[in-house]
Amino acid sequence: MKTRAHPENKICLPAGFTFSAACAGIKSSGRPDLGLVEASPGTTAAALFTQNRIVAAPVEVGRHALAASGSRVRAVIVNSGNANCATGKPGKRACEQICSEVGRLLGVRATEVFPSSTGIIGVPLPVDRLIPKLADLVGAREATTKAVKNFASAIMTTDKQPKSACAQLQSGDAAVKVLGVAKGAGMIHPQLATMLVYLFTDAKGSPAELKQLLRDACDESFNSISVDGDTSTNDTVLLLASGASGVSLRDGKVETRFSNALHQVCQTLAEQIVFEGEGVRHLIRLSVEQAKDCNEASRVARTVAHSLLVKTAWAGADPNWGRILAAVGRSGVAVDSARVSIVIDNQLVCRFGVAHAFDEQQAHQALARPGCNIRILLGRGKGSIIFLTSDLTVEYVRINAEYST
Amino acid sequence: MKTRAHPENKICLPAGFTFSAACAGIKSSGRPDLGLVEASPGTTAAALFTQNRIVAAPVEVGRHALAASGSRVRAVIVNSGNANCATGKPGKRACEQICSEVGRLLGVRATEVFPSSTGIIGVPLPVDRLIPKLADLVGAREATTKAVKNFASAIMTTDKQPKSACAQLQSGDAAVKVLGVAKGAGMIHPQLATMLVYLFTDAKGSPAELKQLLRDACDESFNSISVDGDTSTNDTVLLLASGASGVSLRDGKVETRFSNALHQVCQTLAEQIVFEGEGVRHLIRLSVEQAKDCNEASRVARTVAHSLLVKTAWAGADPNWGRILAAVGRSGVAVDSARVSIVIDNQLVCRFGVAHAFDEQQAHQALARPGCNIRILLGRGKGSIIFLTSDLTVEYVRINAEYST
Repeated sequence: MKTRAHPENKICLPAGFTFSAACAGIKSSGRPDLGLVEASPGTTAAALFTQNRIVAAPVEVGRHALAASGSRVRAVIVNSGNANCATGKPGKRACEQICSEVGRLLGVRATEVFPSSTGIIGVPLPVDRLIPKLADLVGAREATTKAVKNFASAIMTTDKQPKSACAQLQSGDAAVKVLGVAKGAGMIHPQLATMLVYLFTDAKGSPAELKQLLRDACDESFNSISVDGDTSTNDTVLLLASGASGVSLRDGKVETRFSNALHQVCQTLAEQIVFEGEGVRHLIRLSVEQAKDCNEASRVARTVAHSLLVKTAWAGADPNWGRILAAVGRSGVAVDSARVSIVIDNQLVCRFGVAHAFDEQQAHQALARPGCNIRILLGRGKGSIIFLTSDLTVEYVRINAEYST
Repeated sequence: MKTRAHPENKICLPAGFTFSAACAGIKSSGRPDLGLVEASPGTTAAALFTQNRIVAAPVEVGRHALAASGSRVRAVIVNSGNANCATGKPGKRACEQICSEVGRLLGVRATEVFPSSTGIIGVPLPVDRLIPKLADLVGAREATTKAVKNFASAIMTTDKQPKSACAQLQSGDAAVKVLGVAKGAGMIHPQLATMLVYLFTDAKGSPAELKQLLRDACDESFNSISVDGDTSTNDTVLLLASGASGVSLRDGKVETRFSNALHQVCQTLAEQIVFEGEGVRHLIRLSVEQAKDCNEASRVARTVAHSLLVKTAWAGADPNWGRILAAVGRSGVAVDSARVSIVIDNQLVCRFGVAHAFDEQQAHQALARPGCNIRILLGRGKGSIIFLTSDLTVEYVRINAEYST
């Protein structure tokens, strides 16, 4: 398995975007907690949100803004340190007030400003501290790699380092760039939440085109990862296309290559998110094959990836296939044990539901590496999925069990 | 909350049963690993099995035996130390061989012998070591509390102590007794599995009557508990009625009281199982109320009880209601955040989806006790459930992450 824990991705700058960051004092550490992106006129957008029924104020406001603007976005405003979730009507008003003020300062409509928040749940957003910082934030924006890094740092909560990924494609003389910036890994800290992903490109595309491309890329990246099985109330993935490269996605040849670039950026960010999950020591690339269809494969992968017994075995680098088999059996998929086989690294460890002789020491060593492949063959059909997950360590529990309220 | 971690239940002996235990050398510790119960002629039975699609050989053989005998059981044979799961056809043959030999020794049909196994998955059952011990086992059986204790010890794997519970009811001059013996808490140890529960009564009832009573009692006890969310491949609950008291369940007055006694025994065993779960320090009595129906309440309870973030917060005695609310939101139930309230101990901590002022120190202290009540009110209807669960501690991960293969 190729594990790119900290890929040396140079940041490439798609034309049409400027970035900035500031400290509004939401984080008690005094670190940057406010980030802004401005997008040039005509920028189109597509977004995917958390499937949690309890959603934060910015998710509600952002969804409404996209509908009201016809998926046109001129700015993204993000705060970290406070999720603005379970904050009721005052929380929603605070979010709308921030969007209005950013809109006023940039001379765009409030509904063209897309908001996000990440951090503690159930605590009022300190909007009075935040509003006075917005003018500085707007004034500081730049189209530089340094400004992107600052933005990526400002949206972090417990992330160990900022996360970004890039890809490029040529179309004749023109270059199309895709830049992604992300934070978080599921719900990752005492009362802190959220995966936020922002994708920027200078390709030109309609909101509908972007939505389809984004959905496809997310299915194989952010929708196929799990650290702790919890879904945040604030999860957001936003794709913005400035069109500044002059290259249109309508050009069939461009679309496929753009889709590949978008997949690559999303997968790199997804890997970074899992590998930086709290207490994670081992990344597992779980391949569920021979399912009836993709949904079935996904169901099996999720059950295995969420099993405490499987995840703790991985923490101990234990090639304990019995736990994997038992998790497959309770996935809700009508598997026949006599058709299920399991491969750890390159070794067959369970063949048609029973033990298969294998070198245990070798399997242990494979699982002890930072990344390991595990294949589960169901013998039911041709559906498959690749799912990225992690072990569950003592550190995870320690981090999340600290008395924090 | 009334927590009976180690209830001082005197063992009462229903008439019509004898018990014994032996060491067959399956456990490397040399502790007893073979248990037998003989039931008098005419004993009727009902059983519930794991819902895992991957089932151990004894579950297959036991299911078939009940069908073949018309739910008549004359003996129960249990081994610990080996689950006889993922062992293929040889595993099934080994199980059948044991039932045949027990049947021969007791002079009953092989299909009247009900088998169970618990322990490591994927390792052949050492049937050659086991068979020679059966004559001793049959010879040693007694109708004494000591023999019940020996049986309860012989079926343990990582249990800290044997688990049993009793209840009695009077019907005129006759006393009806209900005795329960159990082991395990979900999947509880590296490669060790299974909850096994045996319930014995001297009441008289048809298999169909027993099945209905057993299902009802299990729904509110063993089906409403969770330690780690994993379902074993061997889970079995068996109820045997010898009829030796001469009291029939057909008597309407008896049935209700018998049902209450059975509930009480099952709930006491369920509490013992959760409290003795690996690494468990806090028992949580989760009450989900105002759901549309019981299924909905159960779905919310399970999602909350299985959330790593919620369980680790409980380990830290952290009254972190935001994590509970987020778990409710991803349960798949169409909750409206503005109608959800949460009560920890006696304090309202979240009212209609937003923070409600509460004494954090008091809530922390309540959660730090061995048992605590948490109520989740959904504001959707009249369905409710009480679900017994536990925290997730560093010890759990440590126990299950040890390199064990």
